[in-house]
Amino acid sequence: MKTPIPAALLHAVTERLGIADIARATIRQSGDIARALERETGLEFLHLEQGIPGLPPQRIGVEAECRALQRGVASQYPNMYGTPELGREASRFIKAFLDVDIAPEGCVPTVGSMQGTFSVFLLCTQLDPAKDTILFIDPGFPVQRTQARVLGIPTQSFDIYEHRGARLGAKLESYLATGRIAAIVYSNPNNPAWICLTEEELRTIGTLAERHGAVVVEDLAYLCMDFRKPLGQPGRPPFQATVARYTQHCILMLSASKIFSYAGQRIAVAAIPEALRTRSYPALEARYGMSRLGDAYVLSILYALSSGTCHSAQHALAAMFAAATEGRMDFVADASEYARRAQRSKELFVRHGFRIVYDRDGEEPVGDGFFYTVGYGALTSAELLGELLRYGICAISLDSTGSRQQGIRVCVSQLNRPEQFELLDERLAAFAAAHPHEHL
Amino acid sequence: MKTPIPAALLHAVTERLGIADIARATIRQSGDIARALERETGLEFLHLEQGIPGLPPQRIGVEAECRALQRGVASQYPNMYGTPELGREASRFIKAFLDVDIAPEGCVPTVGSMQGTFSVFLLCTQLDPAKDTILFIDPGFPVQRTQARVLGIPTQSFDIYEHRGARLGAKLESYLATGRIAAIVYSNPNNPAWICLTEEELRTIGTLAERHGAVVVEDLAYLCMDFRKPLGQPGRPPFQATVARYTQHCILMLSASKIFSYAGQRIAVAAIPEALRTRSYPALEARYGMSRLGDAYVLSILYALSSGTCHSAQHALAAMFAAATEGRMDFVADASEYARRAQRSKELFVRHGFRIVYDRDGEEPVGDGFFYTVGYGALTSAELLGELLRYGICAISLDSTGSRQQGIRVCVSQLNRPEQFELLDERLAAFAAAHPHEHL
Repeated sequence: MKTPIPAALLHAVTERLGIADIARATIRQSGDIARALERETGLEFLHLEQGIPGLPPQRIGVEAECRALQRGVASQYPNMYGTPELGREASRFIKAFLDVDIAPEGCVPTVGSMQGTFSVFLLCTQLDPAKDTILFIDPGFPVQRTQARVLGIPTQSFDIYEHRGARLGAKLESYLATGRIAAIVYSNPNNPAWICLTEEELRTIGTLAERHGAVVVEDLAYLCMDFRKPLGQPGRPPFQATVARYTQHCILMLSASKIFSYAGQRIAVAAIPEALRTRSYPALEARYGMSRLGDAYVLSILYALSSGTCHSAQHALAAMFAAATEGRMDFVADASEYARRAQRSKELFVRHGFRIVYDRDGEEPVGDGFFYTVGYGALTSAELLGELLRYGICAISLDSTGSRQQGIRVCVSQLNRPEQFELLDERLAAFAAAHPHEHL
Repeated sequence: MKTPIPAALLHAVTERLGIADIARATIRQSGDIARALERETGLEFLHLEQGIPGLPPQRIGVEAECRALQRGVASQYPNMYGTPELGREASRFIKAFLDVDIAPEGCVPTVGSMQGTFSVFLLCTQLDPAKDTILFIDPGFPVQRTQARVLGIPTQSFDIYEHRGARLGAKLESYLATGRIAAIVYSNPNNPAWICLTEEELRTIGTLAERHGAVVVEDLAYLCMDFRKPLGQPGRPPFQATVARYTQHCILMLSASKIFSYAGQRIAVAAIPEALRTRSYPALEARYGMSRLGDAYVLSILYALSSGTCHSAQHALAAMFAAATEGRMDFVADASEYARRAQRSKELFVRHGFRIVYDRDGEEPVGDGFFYTVGYGALTSAELLGELLRYGICAISLDSTGSRQQGIRVCVSQLNRPEQFELLDERLAAFAAAHPHEHL
């Protein structure tokens, strides 16, 4: 079958899958449309929708995990605070790559950062009866919005596109002034836009959150992957930017999924600075009989969620943290493969008339990494996604990420065969030839 | 140091740990008291409080898990519905040991049955706006009550002690008639009392729950461990008793923690019969854009909780299910070690004047297994637990399990050295000699 796929077939497939509005389709639903079209047409799609690791898992983790299993850890409930090694190595890793001090006791394993944010949303909205709302700095990871919906937690959000730099403070204040914001959530580097908040922006977030009693939830899923800077040299600047430099009123999410290509084992660490971890809240005392945030979080909330995190995976993560900290494993160099794929594919999109939507951090062009965002002429997110699907290219709409901009998110992780770049070039050329009018 | 430990020291320790009422102490808190007393006195305690496996993990699981890791599964997000092997083998296992048909698609991995019940409590209370309450048939696992507290879900409960057999129906009706019961929860065999609901009782629960639109949540943590019957012969009667024989309006929790001594890897399966899995609920459609219970449960709730369950552990569980189903692994024979420990230690308690609190299923004496319950004369739960702590014996109070009876729960899993039985004998003798008046 040649492109374009008839619009009628695309329409029939989305209807059959019960997807009313392609712009609101989840990652899975976008993938489902592509897979259905692949079955119907025999055309192999370029899957730019899924944020899954496209690299093998770090060997050091696999070996440590097998050794732990052979030692018999499978029968033993892991300590709720995590294995001593994991706490210690997480703390050292954070010092080495973020230059921030978080005690081993503050580094708690979670079943991926997915459980990390879910549990922290619960925690933060139970600290103070007046503060019940989560504020998302968009664009963001759509599933975090689903987490709030599962829990019935109110959310607010704004698109940072128009509020970078000096304008961020006033925008944040407008939400915090309500007194209802329990937590502020963002990812850095950003999923989907790969923008990186500047030190100035992080200082603003940290200072204002602390002043208003909101907890900053910083998702570092793509830690040290701002490849514009020589990050990833343990103990040496420059360091990963983090709000923890400006406030202790934060919780950092460090997942093994992307930085160590270890997504399958569902292992991450939630890192809580000492001032927040040991802070007492009367509402926690009333609800759980424990007043300190760290105790109630671990012994009540995380315990109730899953009674801890897979024992062997904790050994894997401890070993990978240690190897990275001691310079025996260069996870940033390994992950920089994503930057090469981004640079090469982004060049194709731009050559065929697309524009990068989220294109700058302050004065600097956005870096190359796991994701980027593209728009095309006056096409809406839904129109662009729908048309690209007809040319065998699957992605997700920016609408689904909370962005107010028109475009799609491209994930490069599955571009792991050279011929896929040729295919992308051909298909984008065909798309552009068929859509000259939308191109300004 | 000799027993008894001075009452003043016990008092000082509970005060220092902030435990106001020993009868309400959690398992962890009871253990903390014992460990603090061990440090202060040098006396080794008999730890009868912790429900942790006292056997090595099943080798078949460990080997399968290491093979999966070596194949590279650590980098790949597991499918949210679970690996195909796990679904298939769980379904076969359920057929072989319960003689119930649940499709592979209905067998979904969870991060232990802890995540199983947490997620199912969320699900069941979101099916119908009128049904917001979980009904616990007590005594039960205290952490399941904490799960409801974490989520802010209302609960009701009753002690089954006075409501066995023909009396169960009227008691259940009195709660179901309110129209507010979303789910009915119990474990079978029971934690803490090791009572096993009879087929008649399960029929009553299933019939009434279905009539009133409540989901039965059956926790089979100790599956096939009613050692009074020759359970555990794949495909041959007698089979594990289950409510699924009487209603499809149920969700079964099958955990690897106890049956395969695999607690460390946090792996279980929630099994949903086809009629419930495919049933549509307008409230789910409104909240998640998916109306079928199975889809909303897996793609919204479980996805939001942890984005799935450890990939390698799924391979372990699939291999263990397969080995058990095919008669290559006799997990019931392995677990029957607990029955031997129960029989031997229970005899000591009885010889020294204790009584079994939950002592019968219908006409039959309660079986020997992982747990049992004992009381002593007119002592309250708190008095008995406190006094036994002074004799170097740690357990948990029946109060903390929702029981209205006076006594303690004894867990035999950590009685894994022969000399511990001699120690138990000595200490119970000393206790009994010092407490002649309470003994009727």
